[in-house]
Amino acid sequence: MTDTDFDVLGIGNALVDVIASVDNAFVETHDFPHGATTMVDLERAEAVYADLPPAQELSGGSCANTIAGLASFGATVAFIGRVRDDQLGKVYTHDLRSLGVDFDVAPATDGPATGRCLVMVTPDAHRTQCTYLGASTFIGPDDVDAGVVARSQVTYLEGYLWDQPSAKDAIRKAATAARGAGRQVAFTLSDPFCVDRHREEFRSLVADEIDVLFGNEAEICSLYEVEDFDAALQRLRPHCRVGALTRSERGSVVIAGDAPAALPTGAAGAGARDGDQWEPGEVHVIDADPVERLVDTTGAGDQYAAGFLHGLTHGYDLATCGRLGSVAAAEVISHLGARPAVSLARLAENVTG
Amino acid sequence: MTDTDFDVLGIGNALVDVIASVDNAFVETHDFPHGATTMVDLERAEAVYADLPPAQELSGGSCANTIAGLASFGATVAFIGRVRDDQLGKVYTHDLRSLGVDFDVAPATDGPATGRCLVMVTPDAHRTQCTYLGASTFIGPDDVDAGVVARSQVTYLEGYLWDQPSAKDAIRKAATAARGAGRQVAFTLSDPFCVDRHREEFRSLVADEIDVLFGNEAEICSLYEVEDFDAALQRLRPHCRVGALTRSERGSVVIAGDAPAALPTGAAGAGARDGDQWEPGEVHVIDADPVERLVDTTGAGDQYAAGFLHGLTHGYDLATCGRLGSVAAAEVISHLGARPAVSLARLAENVTG
Repeated sequence: MTDTDFDVLGIGNALVDVIASVDNAFVETHDFPHGATTMVDLERAEAVYADLPPAQELSGGSCANTIAGLASFGATVAFIGRVRDDQLGKVYTHDLRSLGVDFDVAPATDGPATGRCLVMVTPDAHRTQCTYLGASTFIGPDDVDAGVVARSQVTYLEGYLWDQPSAKDAIRKAATAARGAGRQVAFTLSDPFCVDRHREEFRSLVADEIDVLFGNEAEICSLYEVEDFDAALQRLRPHCRVGALTRSERGSVVIAGDAPAALPTGAAGAGARDGDQWEPGEVHVIDADPVERLVDTTGAGDQYAAGFLHGLTHGYDLATCGRLGSVAAAEVISHLGARPAVSLARLAENVTG
Repeated sequence: MTDTDFDVLGIGNALVDVIASVDNAFVETHDFPHGATTMVDLERAEAVYADLPPAQELSGGSCANTIAGLASFGATVAFIGRVRDDQLGKVYTHDLRSLGVDFDVAPATDGPATGRCLVMVTPDAHRTQCTYLGASTFIGPDDVDAGVVARSQVTYLEGYLWDQPSAKDAIRKAATAARGAGRQVAFTLSDPFCVDRHREEFRSLVADEIDVLFGNEAEICSLYEVEDFDAALQRLRPHCRVGALTRSERGSVVIAGDAPAALPTGAAGAGARDGDQWEPGEVHVIDADPVERLVDTTGAGDQYAAGFLHGLTHGYDLATCGRLGSVAAAEVISHLGARPAVSLARLAENVTG
């Protein structure tokens, strides 16, 4: 596990979050599904932005938020995503690099502006998002350095990437390089509507390609088209390697698949690999960490994934991975914004001693 | 499964509940641990009763409440417990028999009065109990009809019985008869303080004798002396056949042990038996049913066990058993008292269709 340069390499959409507190009527008036993410074009993004109350800009993007969280835990991390050579692109690059993230994809010199995500936080502390992908859609195989993938313990992909046909070649290149080097591939379902758009593809990914799956209750229920969390859990157990299923205030359920032998074997061996810190069939029921004041649920899933992947790449058992996820999620929902406001490495000491 | 007269036979303390709403100061003044059950002698029971505000009397006892719940589901049930031939004993007998419960243990004609449990409900809807066991302690092997045990699918025992040395011979006789006939033995841990008093004995019971274990989070954590639910879950999984672990508003976790082959084999075969409606290694995460108004948590665990055992003895899978438990628990906590106020058979239709 030590012959790598990076604990986790993330590949995702490079987006600047534009966060504003709004009332429910704002979300309804603009016809966005409450709590979900809608893809919009530049024109609609600008129309919504014009109506928004004063907002704050923060570098975001689900996968990049996880990478930022991992950096806060002290993990070594890299990120692949595309910005434009504009003002927001410079801000985005600065924010990631200043955290110590290896991020050296050249910004696009023409085409759409740096992507942005308008985050509308309603009084229930939930967020409704509308995303203009902009330059982030130009991610392609040339942006993926197979050598970096091979030198990363885990390559982490976000489901949102599947909304961009051009990104798929990049994903395939990365997944092939990871498997070829005997590394792990982690994947987040991203959003229930995203699952809806790519259900069949995601199902076969989960069954055949992914080592570590992240999803929240709505996403995993959407994946298997069931109404009930336990029903989704039962569907997932036989054919995933590791699954971390988040349930908001109900905590998370972490599983190691029952049938890893059924998974395809990569060059360096998939299935139950030497050095795995779990046994097939494990199920852990992990509580959410208490939060004094819930401010903004944005980033809860992203930071849970950060804690979990930090644990996984540092040799902790699955229950500890889940607890590190809970710690990071609790931190991020106690303030506005999707990246940690304090050192997660320090908070982690409460879990790992 | 049809060659039995009874779905479930319960063996437990026959107690009349004396339920009163009190403030927290009352519980503190009388020095009872909040939310737990304290055993008292007749003198102390009468002193506390003298201080209680107006109360209502209801037939109770944890195991008998479960049996009453099973009757409400439409199960065929029997109960073994001891009352005295006094006024409360007559009330107790009437209440059980009027539900259709087979209850024919002769009342004691001398010795202590019928046992009672003073239930102090605090404004948080939790109950603190003080129990005077009275005549219920006189349960003995002569009260157990081995033929009835052999003709019951499940014999259900409450942990509180272990507080009475004289009851143990009765338990042993029942357990031997159940195993000899290839029947199942179910057991509830009853109370974290009860677990504290009998930890080693309960641990070996769970590992070696019990087919179906019920316990709430505090009880199962006490059993394994761990602080965390998941830690207790991991301790339990390798060596129980079926466990149903309740977590109040967090629902329940239902498991089928990983290693049933390690269990002792009775005359008709223990371990993974023909006709079991589960596979080793199953884990189900079952949500609590929503409750409009939480009034009194008394009986939540008892009624969960009723729903679960009803499901188990009627061929349902473990997830459905858990959901039937959730339905029954939600019903009983929405009103004062530990037995159902409406037909559970009707509520069950929402789960089983």
